[in-house]
Order: sequence, then structure tokens, then C-alpha cells
Amino acid sequence: MMTGEFAAIARIRRRLPAAPEGQVWIGDDAAVLGPVPGRLLLSTDLAVAGIHGDPSLIGLDDFGWRAMAGALSDIGAMGGRADHALCAVAGPPDTDLDLLYDGLAAAASAHGCAIVGGDLSGCDIVVVAVTVAGSVDAEPGPVGRAGARPGDVLFVTGPVGASAAGLRLLRSGAPLAGPGSGPAERLARAHRRPVARLAEGEVARRAGASAMVDVSDGLAADAGHLADASGVGLELHDVPCAEGATPAEALGGGEDYELVIAAPDPGALTAAFAEAGLRPPLPIGRCVADASRRRLGDAELPAAGWEHPFG
Amino acid sequence: MMTGEFAAIARIRRRLPAAPEGQVWIGDDAAVLGPVPGRLLLSTDLAVAGIHGDPSLIGLDDFGWRAMAGALSDIGAMGGRADHALCAVAGPPDTDLDLLYDGLAAAASAHGCAIVGGDLSGCDIVVVAVTVAGSVDAEPGPVGRAGARPGDVLFVTGPVGASAAGLRLLRSGAPLAGPGSGPAERLARAHRRPVARLAEGEVARRAGASAMVDVSDGLAADAGHLADASGVGLELHDVPCAEGATPAEALGGGEDYELVIAAPDPGALTAAFAEAGLRPPLPIGRCVADASRRRLGDAELPAAGWEHPFG
Repeated sequence: MMTGEFAAIARIRRRLPAAPEGQVWIGDDAAVLGPVPGRLLLSTDLAVAGIHGDPSLIGLDDFGWRAMAGALSDIGAMGGRADHALCAVAGPPDTDLDLLYDGLAAAASAHGCAIVGGDLSGCDIVVVAVTVAGSVDAEPGPVGRAGARPGDVLFVTGPVGASAAGLRLLRSGAPLAGPGSGPAERLARAHRRPVARLAEGEVARRAGASAMVDVSDGLAADAGHLADASGVGLELHDVPCAEGATPAEALGGGEDYELVIAAPDPGALTAAFAEAGLRPPLPIGRCVADASRRRLGDAELPAAGWEHPFG
Repeated sequence: MMTGEFAAIARIRRRLPAAPEGQVWIGDDAAVLGPVPGRLLLSTDLAVAGIHGDPSLIGLDDFGWRAMAGALSDIGAMGGRADHALCAVAGPPDTDLDLLYDGLAAAASAHGCAIVGGDLSGCDIVVVAVTVAGSVDAEPGPVGRAGARPGDVLFVTGPVGASAAGLRLLRSGAPLAGPGSGPAERLARAHRRPVARLAEGEVARRAGASAMVDVSDGLAADAGHLADASGVGLELHDVPCAEGATPAEALGGGEDYELVIAAPDPGALTAAFAEAGLRPPLPIGRCVADASRRRLGDAELPAAGWEHPFG
């Protein structure tokens, strides 16, 4: 096998889909794409080995999948389509780039997104930066974090805490029965192979969602980000807990990538999900006028969520 | 001063230009931009401390500038406009993010590009991934590497080797007189603050350039990439050497970000550069039909260029 950066690029290029006629993907200075339908969405997401995934617990393909899913999720949280991704990968010379790209490419493909370029560099630590270019109609336009209003009903697209519970199981070293064969395996898979809610985001946008955010830092933290940006308070009555996850994992565990959706017309949202054949969104509470209010049932909503330390 | 990731994002956001009405830049899940005029260009570029710049020799602002310039240069090499950039930054808790962003923002601003988003993460090593979204007219369209034909005249937009010579001077520890005051200072500046040739790339595209590449790995290597992609041979008669650089630095030194341009109509190219008020492009040779040919004067063109080691 040829070695070195350019040989690695050639190998990676062969395993990815080819560009359609008139476009240039991997192999030139920049990817050349077609006209963008509607408005352009851009998001970039870092995954650092040991922080965003532990390579001693999950495969490098899982690490790649997680990096891609996290980046795609940001486009889903705007109600957009994830069209194209760029993968910048830094790592030591013995990094199994083929395995890492297996996961990146599988995640992109599973979400209908094409990898059109990237970069490779040496580095003592494996770092992946995935950038996704998406698009969204002008009307109804993208759904930001800041549009929620008092009275809007809050939904989450599914139970949360599965990724955190899966990580706990993987760390415990408990033997798993095999791929997908039981509750423990499902939790481990939720950690290794999270799914970005692109279809849910797009349906919610068309159904009149006023604000959305994806659960990447934890439900309590991310719902708080939405409330902060919108200038509203939160009254949650329920946190739907994934089977096998603890309440703390459901509230504080990130990287489930479910969407929190604020809906002025909750009936329209649930009807649109049903019509699209999606799992029903789960009502968790509502937005209130008192912007300082953060309640879960009769208690204060814990503020904890993941934050990187910087001075 | 508030600390932590979100406080850092808030500080960074305040020092960057605000989004125009109807757009969302930093602060939501993804940046929301306007419609893209023409075709979309995407490129991503990694900068790893110790590999793409030595933080003991240059400031973290210089490191940021270099990362941005390298990413912008890829858009210039397609003949495109660099519209928007995303900066993903990983580093230890004591990383001076404000200084790093000073350089990223200064480089973006100097090249007419807006930083519209990014990501922050912890990491034991400073790693910056800059993604640039550009645009280019449909006609004349983007200029790739693969369009050169036998007989095309090759130009470079300026003398090369200055960045490599500047790095040599910085490594030598020779005292520099001050910013920009002499040849040594100019070389050090070429290393610390390289300029992407965006205007040159766009003028060359409109003037009928058949192929372009930026000098990021070294003139010999990058001209070779252009010839490989185009299936042509190279006969170079000259390598314009920056004042103070050695011939080896001119031939093998990367990160000057001058453009190598293949021109079927060299007169049209030089006339277009003159009309645009740009420095005259320097003829360095021509493309020939024998695709295996790589000559510099009477000798073989050295193949050496920078490549990251991967297994």
C-alpha cells in the first residue's frame, strides 16, 4: 500500500461517491458545487479524541460517525437540508484513516449528505472538524433559537439520556451481547452511532416551529440556551427518559441529538409528524413570559451542561 | 472576566462584524446566509501548532492569520470570491483565544471575508480548522487544476520562497529591526502574514486561465500537481526567487500562496492583470504534451514538496 498524505487522499477519494457531472469534489483546491437552492446554512463541529469520544471504548469508525452526526445535527436544528460535508482530519501517522473515514462516510450517507472535500494533517491527537453546508427554503425560513414566545409548547423528538447511558455501560466494561440485541446494546449503539434528526427538523420548520435546538450539551442546558436566546422562561413538566438511562443522564447527558422544538401550534406539529410517518414528538413543557423562570415540575431546572474550559 | 466556552464565544462574537439584516452568524446552531450568487465553492484547511506554524517563533495571532490565509488561498486558486469563513478552534484551557481570533479576524477582514461561525473545544494541542465558503460565476466558471493543455504558458503571481526564508530567519534567532523596515523583516512578515491571491485568481479566471493552483506545498510540487491533474508535462525556464530566499526555498518552500496559472492566451492574462492594477504575472515556463516531462531549464524538476506522514 502506498503511504503518505496524497496516497491516503487517493484511497479516501475512491471510497466516497463521485461528483455529479459539472461538479468537482475531492481533488482540487476547493469543491465546486452547484447553485444553492434557497438560503445557505453553514456549521462546523470539532471532535477531539478523548473529549468527544474515547477511542479505547469505541472504534475510530464510531468516532467518525459521531463527529459527522454532531455536525449534521446543527443543520437539522435549523430545519435545513444537509447537502455537503467537508472533513478535516488531524492525527498521528498510524491513525487508521480508512476506518475513521468508514464512519464519517457511513454517517454522511445514512443522513443523505455527501462528503465533498477535506484536509489531512499530522497531529499527536486525533482531531476531526466536520463542516456541513446545508440549505433551507426562504419560506418558511430557517428556525433559530431565538423565536420562542410565551405560550409556545415545547417538544422533544424522543427520549433522552441514551448516549450518556451507553457511555456509562461502555466504561463499566460490562459484556454486551452483540449489535442491537438488547437494551444495553441499544444504549451502547446510541453512544456510538447517534442519529441527527434532519427529517424531524424539516417537518417542524414547515409545521411552524418558532424555535429549535439540538440536544448536544444536555436537555436542561440546551432548552436553557433556547430560552435565553428567545428571552422566555421555561416550565417543563416531563423529561422523557430513554429506557435504561437515569434521570440525571436524561437531563444532563448530551449528544442524543434529539431536537427541542417550540411550537405555537402544537396540534399542527404533531399532525405534521404523523403525516410524515415520524415518531410522535413528546411534549415536555411550555415557554412563559418570566424570562428568569427555569422550572422542572415543582423544582428548579438544573443548569448543568457540558462546557469546554477556557480561561 | 467570565471564563469558559460560552463566555469565550460571547467575547469572540463581540469582536467580529455583525450579521446583516436577515442573516444569522455566530450564536445559533448554524449560520444562516443569503442566497449564493453563482456556484458554491467549499474548502477546509487545518493548522496544527508545531506543524503549520511554531508558536515559539510567531504569535498566536500570526498562527491564526496563517490558518485563515491558507484556507482563503484555496478559493483564490479556483478564481472564486471568499465570502464566509467558519473557524473551529481546539486548544488547552490557557489558549489565548482572543489573540488567536485577532489574527483570524484580521486575515479574514483583509481579504474581504466574514467569519460567520465556528466551534471551540478543549485539546492538548492548538488546532485550527478554517472552512471557507466562496462563490464563483457560472461563466467563466471556476478554474480547476485539470484544465491545462500543451502549449499553455505558465505564470506565477509573484516571487516565491519568502515564507520559507522568513521561517529560516525566525529560527536563526537573528534580531529583526522591526515591522517591515528591511528585507529580513519583509521575509519574516511573509511567513507570519501571508496574503492569499484572491484578486489575482479572479482576474485570471476572467482572462481565460485554463488551470490554477496555489503554492502551498512548494512551487515544484504544486506545479507538478497541476500537471498531473491536467495530464501535461512541464518545461519551466525560471523560478522567480524572492529577495533573500535561496533557490531551494523558492522551489520547495510552501505557504507563499502565490498562484501558478496556466494561460492559453498569455497576452490576455498580462493585459488583464495590468488593467486590474495587479503586479504583472511572471512567466515561468509552459505545458507540453509529454505528460512524464518535468524539466527546469536543462535539469529535472525536483519533486520535493511537503506531505504529511500517514501509514
